[in-house]
Amino acid sequence: KHILVIPGDGIGPEVTTWGKAVLEKIGSQFGHEFTFDEALMGHAGIEATGSPLPDETLEKAKASDAILFGAIGHIKYDNDPSAKVRPEQGLLKIRKELGLYANLRPIMLFDELLDASSLKPEILKGTDILFFRELTGDVYFGEKKRSEDGNTASDLMIYHRYEVERIATKAFEAARARSKRLCSVDKANVLEASRLWREVVQELAKQYPDVETEHMFIDNAAMQLVKNPKKFDVVLTANLFGDILTDEASQIAGSMGMLASASIGDGTGFFEPIHGSAHDIAGKDKANPLASILSVALMLEISFGLKEEAKKITDAIDKALKDGYRTGDIADANTDKAKILGTTAMG
Amino acid sequence: KHILVIPGDGIGPEVTTWGKAVLEKIGSQFGHEFTFDEALMGHAGIEATGSPLPDETLEKAKASDAILFGAIGHIKYDNDPSAKVRPEQGLLKIRKELGLYANLRPIMLFDELLDASSLKPEILKGTDILFFRELTGDVYFGEKKRSEDGNTASDLMIYHRYEVERIATKAFEAARARSKRLCSVDKANVLEASRLWREVVQELAKQYPDVETEHMFIDNAAMQLVKNPKKFDVVLTANLFGDILTDEASQIAGSMGMLASASIGDGTGFFEPIHGSAHDIAGKDKANPLASILSVALMLEISFGLKEEAKKITDAIDKALKDGYRTGDIADANTDKAKILGTTAMG
Ligand SMILES: CC(C)[C@H](C(=O)O)[C@@H](O)C(=O)O
Ligand SMILES: CC(C)[C@H](C(=O)O)[C@@H](O)C(=O)O
Repeated sequence: KHILVIPGDGIGPEVTTWGKAVLEKIGSQFGHEFTFDEALMGHAGIEATGSPLPDETLEKAKASDAILFGAIGHIKYDNDPSAKVRPEQGLLKIRKELGLYANLRPIMLFDELLDASSLKPEILKGTDILFFRELTGDVYFGEKKRSEDGNTASDLMIYHRYEVERIATKAFEAARARSKRLCSVDKANVLEASRLWREVVQELAKQYPDVETEHMFIDNAAMQLVKNPKKFDVVLTANLFGDILTDEASQIAGSMGMLASASIGDGTGFFEPIHGSAHDIAGKDKANPLASILSVALMLEISFGLKEEAKKITDAIDKALKDGYRTGDIADANTDKAKILGTTAMG
Repeated sequence: KHILVIPGDGIGPEVTTWGKAVLEKIGSQFGHEFTFDEALMGHAGIEATGSPLPDETLEKAKASDAILFGAIGHIKYDNDPSAKVRPEQGLLKIRKELGLYANLRPIMLFDELLDASSLKPEILKGTDILFFRELTGDVYFGEKKRSEDGNTASDLMIYHRYEVERIATKAFEAARARSKRLCSVDKANVLEASRLWREVVQELAKQYPDVETEHMFIDNAAMQLVKNPKKFDVVLTANLFGDILTDEASQIAGSMGMLASASIGDGTGFFEPIHGSAHDIAGKDKANPLASILSVALMLEISFGLKEEAKKITDAIDKALKDGYRTGDIADANTDKAKILGTTAMG
């Protein structure tokens, strides 16, 4: 299997170094041959070539069996809303070009880290959510306009039936294989795009009579997630709502630095941590590499069907946590100071 | 002062009954003359006249000095995405017609209810946030389209400079009068409308050098709100993001049934609880009337400048809570069963 590593920006290079190292280790332990290549994206791409997604990166991506991605974004652009070329365009473009329409974000709890959440442990315990976030449509990709005088700006929030159908189908299939509960989140009381979304999900639901389907408005979902995260199992939602809800959920799980995501669709799968580029700690050997390592576990399971290998990784992480090892972001007052590790040591 | 009461749907009529009763009591205690009228909106409007905002309601609204609103929405429409006439249209239309562009949502903690939140008390204690949600623009009011074959649906997310300026000005003024911190929330790394938003807020910030201004992406904000709600003071955001964040925040405060909001702008102010129509408990004397009563306190303070009268109300609520009285939604395992009251008794 040929894997393209795209380190990206900020802490991306540090964490993907360890994701890649774990893949190599799994390869030698289990006798798989993994070959690697590397490519630029985001701010790193802009610096080197002027483009947030250089052509070469896209070619390499299409030619690979899976992609391990780090993080994207740079504070420079955040403070300059008028910049025409922006790191994030690279990520959005590769999602579109590779047809990565389904973003899977498992929100899982690490028992050892239960106290790291701001939620009460009794509210949290037992939470296990699998988000299906649509990733190549919505207001992310609809037409963007700025009036000539600069005083009016717009983005088109748009969905086509087939876009909703294909991601919803994936979510229903997953729900069937899990606890048979699916919650679709929209804002159908206000948005036309959401009404189409709800129609399609309602229709599909008829083909999955064994799955209990619920519809929830986004404002209510953002609230219920804090109130009682356990009530959710598979959550299906649009691109923008998914962006918001999954970040909220990862914090609820107390595990922002521990969560991985898989973007899949028509071809090559794309695996990345949920966390961002965290420039404030970049290059300081402080970043938590576990989300990148867990991204590799997702890759092994989803793209290559290597379940045993994936489990070997999650077991190793469980053990490290049980043994008391932590990076700074997941340490708390009870952590043995000598067991707070940097990126390298944890990797 | 002439007050229009719009009970609306679900538990709306029950809770506004008590909001109105408190206004009458304040009037007689302080020697103010309040006169009242009533009008229909939402599902109640549709049932009686076919319209979610009957003309008569709009006329009465424009002629009043302030409006006390209950709640809107009906499960019937939620499950029927193709319904052309919907209760929520009434609320959206009255916001637009009255120019209610600024929705103020104070998220405050009631010390007695600290345990009602799913967050740990130490994370929560000290939280005091004032949201400024833009209310008459964004994807709520942009053009909605459905293709002829029904397979494509869209909503235009759109902002004009003046719309951002006027709400941002209100938020900066409030920040200046409070702790001098303002956090503006957008998605400027992806959305053009957000880039305009950020530009305008950055420009305005120059006129408020005494206010510490921060910009945050919505996904990060949804997360930080759970992680550390105390870090927020005045939060300024667009219509859709505000809808999501304020509901999330109200749950964090553990006080969904206790929070009021004020919508203000060009003319008459509009006061309503944050909670929804809660049809499941409607008509059962179970609804918590305190958010409606607190809406009245906001009305007295904001529309009529009657601070002492407003304080009389919040003090009375504090006392009821200190004395151990609760409605079902805010009761917990430690509540004395005899002190769990219905709507009428709490009112
Ligand atoms: C970086 C940004 C464009 C991106 C998104 O909004 O999709 C990120 O927040 C994510 O969730 O992957
Ligand atoms: C009922 C609905 C249209 C409304 C909104 O989304 O604005 C409500 O959720 C609110 O927050 O007032």
